[in-house]
Amino acid sequence: MGTERKSMFISEESKKLTAYHESGHAIVALNTDGAHPIHKATIVPRGSALGMVTQLPSQDETSISKKQLLARLDVCMGGRVAEELIFGEESITTGASNDLHTATELAHYMVSTCGMSDAIGPVYVKERPGSEMQSRIDAEVVKLLREAYDRVKQLLKKHENALHALANALLECETLSADEIKRVLNPYKEVQISEQQEELALT
Amino acid sequence: MGTERKSMFISEESKKLTAYHESGHAIVALNTDGAHPIHKATIVPRGSALGMVTQLPSQDETSISKKQLLARLDVCMGGRVAEELIFGEESITTGASNDLHTATELAHYMVSTCGMSDAIGPVYVKERPGSEMQSRIDAEVVKLLREAYDRVKQLLKKHENALHALANALLECETLSADEIKRVLNPYKEVQISEQQEELALT
Amino acid sequence: MGTERKSMFISEESKKLTAYHESGHAIVALNTDGAHPIHKATIVPRGSALGMVTQLPSQDETSISKKQLLARLDVCMGGRVAEELIFGEESITTGASNDLHTATELAHYMVSTCGMSDAIGPVYVKERPGSEMQSRIDAEVVKLLREAYDRVKQLLKKHENALHALANALLECETLSADEIKRVLNPYKEVQISEQQEELALT
Amino acid sequence: MGTERKSMFISEESKKLTAYHESGHAIVALNTDGAHPIHKATIVPRGSALGMVTQLPSQDETSISKKQLLARLDVCMGGRVAEELIFGEESITTGASNDLHTATELAHYMVSTCGMSDAIGPVYVKERPGSEMQSRIDAEVVKLLREAYDRVKQLLKKHENALHALANALLECETLSADEIKRVLNPYKEVQISEQQEELALT
Amino acid sequence: MGTERKSMFISEESKKLTAYHESGHAIVALNTDGAHPIHKATIVPRGSALGMVTQLPSQDETSISKKQLLARLDVCMGGRVAEELIFGEESITTGASNDLHTATELAHYMVSTCGMSDAIGPVYVKERPGSEMQSRIDAEVVKLLREAYDRVKQLLKKHENALHALANALLECETLSADEIKRVLNPYKEVQISEQQEELALT
Amino acid sequence: MGTERKSMFISEESKKLTAYHESGHAIVALNTDGAHPIHKATIVPRGSALGMVTQLPSQDETSISKKQLLARLDVCMGGRVAEELIFGEESITTGASNDLHTATELAHYMVSTCGMSDAIGPVYVKERPGSEMQSRIDAEVVKLLREAYDRVKQLLKKHENALHALANALLECETLSADEIKRVLNPYKEVQISEQQEELALT
Repeated sequence: MGTERKSMFISEESKKLTAYHESGHAIVALNTDGAHPIHKATIVPRGSALGMVTQLPSQDETSISKKQLLARLDVCMGGRVAEELIFGEESITTGASNDLHTATELAHYMVSTCGMSDAIGPVYVKERPGSEMQSRIDAEVVKLLREAYDRVKQLLKKHENALHALANALLECETLSADEIKRVLNPYKEVQISEQQEELALT
Repeated sequence: MGTERKSMFISEESKKLTAYHESGHAIVALNTDGAHPIHKATIVPRGSALGMVTQLPSQDETSISKKQLLARLDVCMGGRVAEELIFGEESITTGASNDLHTATELAHYMVSTCGMSDAIGPVYVKERPGSEMQSRIDAEVVKLLREAYDRVKQLLKKHENALHALANALLECETLSADEIKRVLNPYKEVQISEQQEELALT
Repeated sequence: MGTERKSMFISEESKKLTAYHESGHAIVALNTDGAHPIHKATIVPRGSALGMVTQLPSQDETSISKKQLLARLDVCMGGRVAEELIFGEESITTGASNDLHTATELAHYMVSTCGMSDAIGPVYVKERPGSEMQSRIDAEVVKLLREAYDRVKQLLKKHENALHALANALLECETLSADEIKRVLNPYKEVQISEQQEELALT
Repeated sequence: MGTERKSMFISEESKKLTAYHESGHAIVALNTDGAHPIHKATIVPRGSALGMVTQLPSQDETSISKKQLLARLDVCMGGRVAEELIFGEESITTGASNDLHTATELAHYMVSTCGMSDAIGPVYVKERPGSEMQSRIDAEVVKLLREAYDRVKQLLKKHENALHALANALLECETLSADEIKRVLNPYKEVQISEQQEELALT
Repeated sequence: MGTERKSMFISEESKKLTAYHESGHAIVALNTDGAHPIHKATIVPRGSALGMVTQLPSQDETSISKKQLLARLDVCMGGRVAEELIFGEESITTGASNDLHTATELAHYMVSTCGMSDAIGPVYVKERPGSEMQSRIDAEVVKLLREAYDRVKQLLKKHENALHALANALLECETLSADEIKRVLNPYKEVQISEQQEELALT
Repeated sequence: MGTERKSMFISEESKKLTAYHESGHAIVALNTDGAHPIHKATIVPRGSALGMVTQLPSQDETSISKKQLLARLDVCMGGRVAEELIFGEESITTGASNDLHTATELAHYMVSTCGMSDAIGPVYVKERPGSEMQSRIDAEVVKLLREAYDRVKQLLKKHENALHALANALLECETLSADEIKRVLNPYKEVQISEQQEELALT
């Protein structure tokens, strides 16, 4: 995750965008059934990341359900969707590239390795499939990603007040623990936070 | 097969899902003409597998009939189909990935090496065929897999009471021998168990 | 060809299937103009083969006519077709895989190297042709193989009594010389056997 | 960037074309929201480049908005568009090849890595995608480049007087600082120049 | 070319087929404008070849006209066409494979390297072209070969008496010089033989 | 360029074809705006080339205009077009292969590296593009080459008297300087020759 970069100059505009990006991840994680619980959120840059939401893994990771995988897709999309929702489509940034990378690999895993797409069927697709199979998998992966994006847009529109509140709290405090996030979002009613110890990182 | 993992924490929910997954394999094996006889079933995790049904190979493995290969496909599908049938499509897990891998390779072998598909014909297809032949083989493999999936869904719906009985017995005892499985399923009438010694593993 | 495997356990069902498979090769070879004469037939397993029909090459192998190549295709198909004819489509086995491999390579050689297909034309096709040419060659190869399969089905239906007689004789004696095959088939009238010394193997 | 090439012979015609090419880059940079500020412009050849406009990077480069990326595309196109506008389509030169290379890579990055194209979707496309995905990305990249080209043509038509003024000033002085460019373009009203220190090169 | 194979056993049937094959090459060479003059013809096997027609190259080989290349195609086809014409399509042999190889490479050279096909245009096609260009070149090459085949069929039908005469003379004498061929074909009127020294081999 | 090959035998027919081929290059160069000026023409063979027209490069080669590149295409086509125009389509030779190679690479460079084709757009195409982009580039390259071929056919038809005069002068003198070519073509009015020193070779 790299060390904190205290000396780095970040413009106010960029800080604000990051605050909403990370709040987007957090709000989706807090409102999606099957998502990992949140541990903390920060807009202090580390390595090449301008901010981060850390999540706690569930107790038992040996097999993962389709519902949990879809929740992971949605949490990935939360950052970019928040950027677009608040600042407009022209202001979305390259900063969501890693999230898209993670989401694309998850969707590909569901479709080609886990037989979780009706359109492709209960099949395990080898690494370099024929061009027609490749096309159908690519189309199905994009469909899963678009559906996640649209789902998240709906969710963040509904929770826009909570999104503003959390982003403002992050701009003020820079780092918030699960408890602090809970207190910030309390007035907006729909938050569920669990308290566990291990951490997962979302840039 | 790895050694038993006694210290591993498995949630109750996951154990239950595994019990139905393994029972799915077993019920299909016991009710499909041409399938290998069952040796035992367990939900004690070993290596990365959360459970296992072991089968006995037939006496003479030098040449295998189409009917036997189709039975193997069906046994592979039993785990995933049981998950979907009992817990719903949202709760199917990544745990069936190995079964799908085995089933896909079997179906591919039938179609491209053994000339067992009318759609492809009595031809032996080399490893990297032209893109059109590849598409037709991919389509035929998926067709075989979907047919197996649907066949198994029918079968497990019909034997749903037996499936519940076996899953509950596994949750209670964790490991069942062929004789014990026979006794559990006796009230449900359709079980045939042979008693032989060698073992095959299905995760 | 490997040494005889005397200790190997073969089920009665498998022995019977092999007897018909080898008799299929033999009956086709004996009734197809341009085929190599038969030397002997056996259902004693050698290496991975469960049985074998050995043929004698013609005197002069420097150039081979289209008719001779088509006869070779037909002899290859004889085993699988006999399996299907006598035991039904569900009981065809993986044992014909080598025959299909040989037949596919022969058909490919006729089409892409010898200009023996009107559909492809008087052209010598290089090893990795363009994808369209590849598709057309694949289609033509499958067409040649399907035609051979159908031709042989007709032939074996017509000679079904001879097929039963030869298979039963093989089950009884396990190995038959050309003369013995001649005597077995004599009542069924259509046999021609030449007597030469070199051997070719068909599994 | 190479050293100045004082001894190189450049025809008057070529110098004039270069002056308009570099002025095209500069006028676009000065009139496009989100573009880097200009530092200086020159038609003194260096290495293989006949001229250059150097720009100053923005303060904070950790994440870049879609608007900024589109502005970069437009600045790249400014050179070629100026050539075509002033000298006609027959006189465009090979000198814009590097600009097209940069613009193509930028557009490809937006589409396949940053999910910035609605037509492709919020997906991260791996390096060697399937042929259909490749076609769709290629089409989208070309669309972005054509749109930039057309946008810039509109802009330079509108600022044609400023373009002539700047090109003539470059032909006279060969190198102009940001302040000097500001003074030249002052009568044409639409110039914004910032004053910072680092440099980016556009050939 | 290998040494003569005196001990090799060749069946009468095969010798006859070879005599007509070589006579086919010779008759086409003697009746096609632009073909190399013949030096001798033989049905004595050498290496893997069962017979051979040797031709004399033209004086000046630095550049070759389209007419000369078409004549070479036709001479290549003469052997196979003679087989088909005299013995029927079922009796064509693998012996024409080398001729088809040579003819295919010639046609490919004309189309992709020499710009000699209107359908492809005045273009030099690199070794691994795009799949569409590859398809069009393959189609054009096959078209050139089919046209040559048809042209030669017409020619050999017209000269069928000469073909019989020459084949019979070869069966009798095994090897014929240009002068001897001239005498054999004299009654059939259409022969032109030049007398030069160097040799080219056609199998 | 190799040394002169004095001892090589060249037929009269071949010499005449070469004289017209080289005259074709020269007449196009002299009558196309943007073409390099001619230095000399010869039909004395050097290396594998049967003749050559040498041109002088322009003063300033750092950037080349579209018009100059089209002129180079036309000069390349001049040789083959002259062959076809004077001797007929059947007599075109393999000697134009190098010219087609050069012309194809030029056209490819214009289309894929310099953004000089409206059909492809202002894009820099990487070395191994997707198959659809490849097809479109191939089509555009062939279009540029066909247009050059047709343009040159028009031009040489118009200048056919000059072509005969120059070819005859070459057959008589074997090598002509720029001044001598000027004198030969003077009666035909449309010649422009510049006098510079460096040389470019066209075979």
